[in-house]
Amino acid sequence: MAKSTLEDLLDFIRHPSISTDPSYNEAMRQCAEWLKTWFEGKKITAEIHQTAGHPVVLAETPKIAGAPTVLIYGHYDVQPVDPLELWDSHPFDPTVKDGIITARGATDNKGQIMAHMQGVAELLERGELALNVIFLIEGEEEIGSPNLTPFLEAQRDRLACDVVVVSDTGMVGPGVPTMTYGLRGVAALEVVFHGPSMDLHSGMYGGAVMNPATALARVLAKMHDDQLRVAIPGFYDEVKPLEAWEREAWAKLPVSEETYVKLSGAPALDGEAGYSAVERIAGRPTAEINGLTSGYQGVGTKTVLPSQARAKITFRLTPHQDPEKILLAAEQFFRDHASPAVTVVVERGHYAAAYYVDPHAGFAKEAQSALKSTWGREPALVREGGSIPIVQVFKDALGVETLLLGLALPDCRAHSPNETFPIENYEKGILLNQNLLQNITNATVSAG
Amino acid sequence: MAKSTLEDLLDFIRHPSISTDPSYNEAMRQCAEWLKTWFEGKKITAEIHQTAGHPVVLAETPKIAGAPTVLIYGHYDVQPVDPLELWDSHPFDPTVKDGIITARGATDNKGQIMAHMQGVAELLERGELALNVIFLIEGEEEIGSPNLTPFLEAQRDRLACDVVVVSDTGMVGPGVPTMTYGLRGVAALEVVFHGPSMDLHSGMYGGAVMNPATALARVLAKMHDDQLRVAIPGFYDEVKPLEAWEREAWAKLPVSEETYVKLSGAPALDGEAGYSAVERIAGRPTAEINGLTSGYQGVGTKTVLPSQARAKITFRLTPHQDPEKILLAAEQFFRDHASPAVTVVVERGHYAAAYYVDPHAGFAKEAQSALKSTWGREPALVREGGSIPIVQVFKDALGVETLLLGLALPDCRAHSPNETFPIENYEKGILLNQNLLQNITNATVSAG
Repeated sequence: MAKSTLEDLLDFIRHPSISTDPSYNEAMRQCAEWLKTWFEGKKITAEIHQTAGHPVVLAETPKIAGAPTVLIYGHYDVQPVDPLELWDSHPFDPTVKDGIITARGATDNKGQIMAHMQGVAELLERGELALNVIFLIEGEEEIGSPNLTPFLEAQRDRLACDVVVVSDTGMVGPGVPTMTYGLRGVAALEVVFHGPSMDLHSGMYGGAVMNPATALARVLAKMHDDQLRVAIPGFYDEVKPLEAWEREAWAKLPVSEETYVKLSGAPALDGEAGYSAVERIAGRPTAEINGLTSGYQGVGTKTVLPSQARAKITFRLTPHQDPEKILLAAEQFFRDHASPAVTVVVERGHYAAAYYVDPHAGFAKEAQSALKSTWGREPALVREGGSIPIVQVFKDALGVETLLLGLALPDCRAHSPNETFPIENYEKGILLNQNLLQNITNATVSAG
Repeated sequence: MAKSTLEDLLDFIRHPSISTDPSYNEAMRQCAEWLKTWFEGKKITAEIHQTAGHPVVLAETPKIAGAPTVLIYGHYDVQPVDPLELWDSHPFDPTVKDGIITARGATDNKGQIMAHMQGVAELLERGELALNVIFLIEGEEEIGSPNLTPFLEAQRDRLACDVVVVSDTGMVGPGVPTMTYGLRGVAALEVVFHGPSMDLHSGMYGGAVMNPATALARVLAKMHDDQLRVAIPGFYDEVKPLEAWEREAWAKLPVSEETYVKLSGAPALDGEAGYSAVERIAGRPTAEINGLTSGYQGVGTKTVLPSQARAKITFRLTPHQDPEKILLAAEQFFRDHASPAVTVVVERGHYAAAYYVDPHAGFAKEAQSALKSTWGREPALVREGGSIPIVQVFKDALGVETLLLGLALPDCRAHSPNETFPIENYEKGILLNQNLLQNITNATVSAG
């Protein structure tokens, strides 16, 4: 690998492109500009499209009439970095040690999308690119892609393609090529219980005035039953049972309960009764508290009865669950169970349905063949617990399926401090891109 | 009232004497120095005593042999000020409007202790002080007075007195003189549930790894039963039922459920079944969550499975409950009910037993007479929900009872944003001090 191939990625990572926090808006803009300049340097035309939120970068290889078109999707925005004190080095000053890049965005998604960018640029330079590639790199994936659907719909003709390729999922383990044929959906909300109009003296008022933190805890506790099933009425109505072949295949994956204990650092696992850890992540919906806030959180004790308590919650959804229906049910649940001594305010966040695609149709064969030739072994077929809302949108807006060919390892710590990406996966990603495009070219030629 | 009498109080208030936060240590020291200088300006000798924490200010009027000694206790430390954005003006830049002082510490406790300081200084200046007064003003009341007991024990002979007077409690309503004959105790702890070693991606791990925020909410919810009684085993073992005469007297106080709804701004009240709001505050123990912290608390959504969740909790205790026993039971409760997938860490905070003194013994008659002549009506006899741990310590270390003659109104917002103190209560406090000292002088002379 040329030295500049690595340097390009490190430069890309250095932009603190945190989409959820408006104070990084300028960094987001600069990151998009950087991408445009990079593409142009590789003789790939590129445009920045403004949206109501963060801009989209759209790049296209020189048009080859009659050849198939592959749309490669990725995102240049990253998750926030706090708690900053848990990072061993600055999250936007990437370090490279023992073949591992450590930085926010290294794996999610800058390392993975840049592998495709480099793969295509090399093919183009060598005169070996025999099809059309469109790069669609957005800046709002981590906040639910609120402005991408209108963009896709407006640019439907221009974005017409035969298949979408996304590397934003995980590999089952080091060296195990993985094709993801399902993703969970997501639905976010924030619940606030308002009690007294200000924090009160817990001695002067405690006992008479209901504590909103206590009121909230009492409802959050009801969100799961004794079996740790989600207890919101109707939550499982649309959930289909896992298929026998899936449970069998997943049981053979090189991932055990111990793997998750080790990866997470938790003292033990606990979750919905009746399912393995892999099944709970890949095939079962969840209700997670992402954040809790109430009262005094500083050093020492402050004897207050808090004015309010809030919980950030996201649901992960399996195929057929309707995110809007789930959010409505959750909102009703919090209202139904709250103490009459608090005012309940629920604010909806982003949401997206789960995705499921037949792993034996479309270009899936070409993808699995490319995975096999890149890593030299049969790929694993999995469903993943995370969400890539845009995959369903591609199907709706462009009428094509998406190949999910992730390059992240289970210990890459996406969304966590000290996020990593192995240089080997970057290199293999470049190769995978080239093998895949070659296979698609061949398949289309032979079909044509 | 002389203009300087008000200016003195505003100067006192301007010191940001927050005891719980080490970054205010220098402000604490300067506040103690300011008090010493003030006393010396009034021809009252004063000393600053270093402790393992914040210093104690000790001041004494010129010794009159054979005369009784009254020890007046107060504190110069104040509660933290956050959330700062809820203050209408800076908490340490007191505003005076329509006869109301607004600032942190205005009522708790600077306004109240300074009323006594001014009362004594005036008597001394007029040559009318016929007994000995010792001022003991500490800097650690808001953090549980950890260093005062050793100080009292070391200075036992020097602090020998006939009675202690404290104005750090409340009046039942404007113009209603109030003697407090009981106080709740307090016991603080912080509970931390540690799950994964870092915040995880809630999609990649959610379902397999137990969420510590969920685990904590599930135990916090169990802390009260359906009747909102505290459900920690043994919690009520030492709690005595309210006496019939108390319930009758309290029912006649000019304080209703509506009063607390209005004062608190809560949409409604809720609390332990079978007791009125006044009874729940004055005579029943509680378990309050003072703060909740977990995961992402910033703007927008962050789809993490938090590494840990923490709750700050204080118990308010009634007479006969042993704070150490309660803390032990609470700690055991959290360990017993926590998910095996979290590590439970419990850190104890300060604690103090409740106080109860016979309102018809000792100098209580002189106190009630002084309250009556100051406000022109019969005083109310109440028990209060807050805690003044040091009152029990005076009884143990000095062998004397404490007269609790509070000057705070229910809407003074102690511990809350926009804390206030009416100038009228400051003036009446000065008068109360003088009437009380006169009554005690007379009682001792007639007794002698």
